[in-house]
Amino acid sequence: MAQADKIKIIARISSVFSEKFGIPRQSGLAGNISRIIFEEEFRNPDALRGIEGYSHLWLIWKFSESERETWSPTVRPPRLGGNERMGVFATRSPFRPNPLGLSSVELVGVEKTDMGHTLLVKGADLLDGTPIYDIKPYLAFTDSHDDAVGGFSDAKLSYSLKVDFPKELEALFCPADAAVIHELLAQDPRPAYIDDAERIFGLAFGGRQIKFIVFGDTLTVIAVE
Amino acid sequence: MAQADKIKIIARISSVFSEKFGIPRQSGLAGNISRIIFEEEFRNPDALRGIEGYSHLWLIWKFSESERETWSPTVRPPRLGGNERMGVFATRSPFRPNPLGLSSVELVGVEKTDMGHTLLVKGADLLDGTPIYDIKPYLAFTDSHDDAVGGFSDAKLSYSLKVDFPKELEALFCPADAAVIHELLAQDPRPAYIDDAERIFGLAFGGRQIKFIVFGDTLTVIAVE
Repeated sequence: MAQADKIKIIARISSVFSEKFGIPRQSGLAGNISRIIFEEEFRNPDALRGIEGYSHLWLIWKFSESERETWSPTVRPPRLGGNERMGVFATRSPFRPNPLGLSSVELVGVEKTDMGHTLLVKGADLLDGTPIYDIKPYLAFTDSHDDAVGGFSDAKLSYSLKVDFPKELEALFCPADAAVIHELLAQDPRPAYIDDAERIFGLAFGGRQIKFIVFGDTLTVIAVE
Repeated sequence: MAQADKIKIIARISSVFSEKFGIPRQSGLAGNISRIIFEEEFRNPDALRGIEGYSHLWLIWKFSESERETWSPTVRPPRLGGNERMGVFATRSPFRPNPLGLSSVELVGVEKTDMGHTLLVKGADLLDGTPIYDIKPYLAFTDSHDDAVGGFSDAKLSYSLKVDFPKELEALFCPADAAVIHELLAQDPRPAYIDDAERIFGLAFGGRQIKFIVFGDTLTVIAVE
């Protein structure tokens, strides 16, 4: 058996994503704002001293919905249509030997609340309540590689849907949330392996369900519940 | 007490850095080649299928020399001269609530050995034998932020030493290693808090000790043992 170590949950995220379905497939793909709330043991404003000098942060977090007892060497990435198998270390799939997620987010600010000092971040692809193990500053000189070649995940990035979001439904949200919902829907939040033109899909967002259908390359919002 | 989770060691790195002292302060700062050797349980070539399509990888690893029972909310980053205290989450310091390291490396190749399929990577800032928890592809569209503002760590990056490496000592290394040693020395591997012009320092590299002194902005190699 492989040697195991213990890591502590230092914080949790509070986000608009209450369901796995519909979360952007990577960070930075939508402009949603989330809040990082520290666990009591780590609720110390000194630990954040100087963090406002950074525009971006790294989060190392737990794929809490994806824990498995065993691991599989290959996975089927949704970006490839869900039919092709890739090595798990060649993907960012949640189903990996250790359920560790890695996301860069924009730091919007530090805010004092009745749960201590919290971090407001933009673009996180984390489910509401996700445990966080570490927060680090993003250092462009070592972390940024604009010229990095991205293997198969480059291929399907440009694909997006036209979004038809009727004004009267859009008006149920504040303008910032409506813009984020547009971004999420344009990225086609349907599971890759479902190809059923008859089906009504639902995107959970901030406690609401946004119901939509897709025909061809157009997604139409039909109800908000 | 904070909730704790278990994570498994999936691999270890084999690198030229046998001592903490002298390791580049971040990944990518020197062109040294390291080898990632999977633990037996994770030694499966299928898990690497497709990885050669990527130029860069992320390693999430263990600061195995920096484990502590308790955590301190502030640290003294060497880049600031070791005298100023910063919040631990505003630094990449090894002394953090969870000893997790994050490094991007260049993928040089996949190589079959008698310890299974291994990954050759360039620029890793990991001590020889460091345990690795996860390996992920670097995805430029979500991971690269050239415009990220880097807080205080931007400030001291341009600083480097002139290196005087006598030809007869340099000739003890193959040209590729000699070039890496030049890069490591130019980055001033002395501990930030030691300011002792009389002192002889040693850099461990691939089982050898490179002895040097520093006067002003010039580092002179005086012996290789």
